[in-house]
Amino acid sequence: MSAQVNVVLLGLGVVGGGVARALREKADTYSQRIGASLVLRRVLERRLEMAQAAGVDPALLSSNAQEALSGDVDIVVELLGGEHPAYELIKESLSSGRYVVTANKEVMAKHGPELLGLAAENGVDILYEASVGAGIPIISPVKRDLSANHISSIRAIINGTTNYILTRMSQDGLDFDAGLAQAQDLGYAEADPTNDVDGYDATYKLAILASLAFHTRVRPEDVHREGIRHLASRDFRYARELGYAIKLLAVARREDNSVQVRVHPALVAEGELLAKVDGALNAIEIEGDLSGKVLFQGAGAGSLPAASAVLADVLDAARAIVQGQRPSPWRYTDDTAVVPVLELMTRYYIRLEVADRPGVLAGIARAFGDHGVSIASVIQKEIEEAAETAELVIMTHRAQEEAVQATLVQLRELPEVVNVGNLLRVDD
Amino acid sequence: MSAQVNVVLLGLGVVGGGVARALREKADTYSQRIGASLVLRRVLERRLEMAQAAGVDPALLSSNAQEALSGDVDIVVELLGGEHPAYELIKESLSSGRYVVTANKEVMAKHGPELLGLAAENGVDILYEASVGAGIPIISPVKRDLSANHISSIRAIINGTTNYILTRMSQDGLDFDAGLAQAQDLGYAEADPTNDVDGYDATYKLAILASLAFHTRVRPEDVHREGIRHLASRDFRYARELGYAIKLLAVARREDNSVQVRVHPALVAEGELLAKVDGALNAIEIEGDLSGKVLFQGAGAGSLPAASAVLADVLDAARAIVQGQRPSPWRYTDDTAVVPVLELMTRYYIRLEVADRPGVLAGIARAFGDHGVSIASVIQKEIEEAAETAELVIMTHRAQEEAVQATLVQLRELPEVVNVGNLLRVDD
Repeated sequence: MSAQVNVVLLGLGVVGGGVARALREKADTYSQRIGASLVLRRVLERRLEMAQAAGVDPALLSSNAQEALSGDVDIVVELLGGEHPAYELIKESLSSGRYVVTANKEVMAKHGPELLGLAAENGVDILYEASVGAGIPIISPVKRDLSANHISSIRAIINGTTNYILTRMSQDGLDFDAGLAQAQDLGYAEADPTNDVDGYDATYKLAILASLAFHTRVRPEDVHREGIRHLASRDFRYARELGYAIKLLAVARREDNSVQVRVHPALVAEGELLAKVDGALNAIEIEGDLSGKVLFQGAGAGSLPAASAVLADVLDAARAIVQGQRPSPWRYTDDTAVVPVLELMTRYYIRLEVADRPGVLAGIARAFGDHGVSIASVIQKEIEEAAETAELVIMTHRAQEEAVQATLVQLRELPEVVNVGNLLRVDD
Repeated sequence: MSAQVNVVLLGLGVVGGGVARALREKADTYSQRIGASLVLRRVLERRLEMAQAAGVDPALLSSNAQEALSGDVDIVVELLGGEHPAYELIKESLSSGRYVVTANKEVMAKHGPELLGLAAENGVDILYEASVGAGIPIISPVKRDLSANHISSIRAIINGTTNYILTRMSQDGLDFDAGLAQAQDLGYAEADPTNDVDGYDATYKLAILASLAFHTRVRPEDVHREGIRHLASRDFRYARELGYAIKLLAVARREDNSVQVRVHPALVAEGELLAKVDGALNAIEIEGDLSGKVLFQGAGAGSLPAASAVLADVLDAARAIVQGQRPSPWRYTDDTAVVPVLELMTRYYIRLEVADRPGVLAGIARAFGDHGVSIASVIQKEIEEAAETAELVIMTHRAQEEAVQATLVQLRELPEVVNVGNLLRVDD
């Protein structure tokens, strides 16, 4: 039994600071729980003020990665974020037989299978609970607790920034720009919000979850991605009248040997739990053939919740090291093809701005009929008297995305259609 | 690497049948995932018709426990239920170096710490994910994913039968007996519903969760237990008017070195997620100092959900056996005292039947005042004209249970109080 487990921290930002603080303040508890002392040996960080803020001895700081990783290191905790040099440092650490704990969704989404394979080759493991849903247990429950299931679907709200903005748009009638500004004021959104509001962050997380749940390889570029910039506050009002909330959903579904993976705003029926997940919260619903639907919910971001997940992985790795365990390799056993979103079958919400004159609906209805898309309801909403236009909200019956997209092309060509305002999928 | 992992199943009831079927139907998938074949070697079960229903080769059946456990056995799956002989068979299995997987909440609540110790002594493990919340991952997430946290509270709806009855009482205005009858018709409640409706089942589960989350020993008899028989349908109506749902909550809270554990009907604010968990669903909310509140929800009972948890444990044990891992022992590190419910500080809902005449409220208010219990609101509800009585619903400010109980004693002595209908705690 090793009496000491040595940890190196790469990056002392928001999450790293929380990790370093907990390692110091809870040292006794953690030692008791793993049966060895857990020692922070070095920290890769240039900024002295970060060490002071986190209460880390400045003597532990190093600005050189090779120096930080040298010597007697058991666990490397990578919290640099971004693809490079995180990817290279993780590879190097695994190759030299160190356990790696990472919160890096981009690296895991793009290189997860390769890194898991490299870990197995070297008799160690790479743990990444914090990469999805911060403090919400999800990676390990899918890997372990649901492992007896054939998982058929994942439906998740996994970006707190966009969920906060959508909640403000829905509850306070704000438009996107105002909702974003509020999220930025509160620190929920960054100055450049692209990563969140255009769905990249959710795409990385979904690729990680789908790869894990389906035992297959899903790449971020396999995921159909739409952000929330095009939503208007009245879409929320109309959706509510129809009995729906609008959420940025990350959805992965498996049918036979094919997988559908997509991130886009979706109409969620108000009775569903996911419709009630508001503010910066995250929630992930997984459906297994044995378990049925299980839901995991909590804070999806923040220094301490992310530190909770990082440290759980650190303690797990430390226990394995102390016990001399060789981890079980993760196996990608299923060969599945990702189907394009054009093959999706669902119901659609379409908002159109049209000329406000008799007979307009006939031409519009014909466009839907020409592509075999059946209309479930048409509601005429606001009329802009000055512009002589009216707004229509059309709900379709179940239809194939390809036919609906072709319908939109035809609608855009109609003289009576001033603008195709929005297309939203219903998720149920 | 062992090419084969041998499993013995003790009991082929509702859950055992699901486990046996999945082991057969998913044999290839499971073998791929653990890197060895998982073989059902013997089944302790007398009833031939159960083997036929589950598609188990009758040649595997044995009606003798010693025979079933003899020979080359790696994992013993105990699904007999009840304390005896399950407890003895588990002890025997652990002592002879077998991994044990159990869904037995009674045995784990009463003997968990002893059995975990015995497993550690013998270099094996006892896994019990199915003992709480069936297919909802909860034991392993608390043990592993939240292990870096100081957990301060558990609040849970962990008995599906009572949650179903309460949902019917709340939504359909049924009284307890009618709600119970409906639950029995649907198979949610047993002919003798004591174990569920009087809170024993929830008490076992809470003792298991609290022991695990607080790293301490909480016995079932430490848990303050009240069932749901005394609830009237109008309690739900009054609670709703006040903005609350009524749920049978299992609550464990830790403060400093003391723990409070209780199972009783409680008022839960309508905005809370736990208030929206309806029907036979279960949900468990855990609060950690790092993670914040995380919620786990799903089907808390049923053959397949329970089999999902049992099989996750079986696969986990099989992976450990295949990899030659020695499991990390679970450590009870914290020494905490269970405080009696009389020390509880919370708000209370009290329903009283009183004489319908002027001046009655003065005497009642004095009784509260005499014990230092401050009244937040008094609402006069229905009046029974024939009996010349009125019903009062009193909400208190935060007060100590002991003072509230003393108030009730005094109230019962007042001539103007016809009946003390109900006392419910507000949980927030």
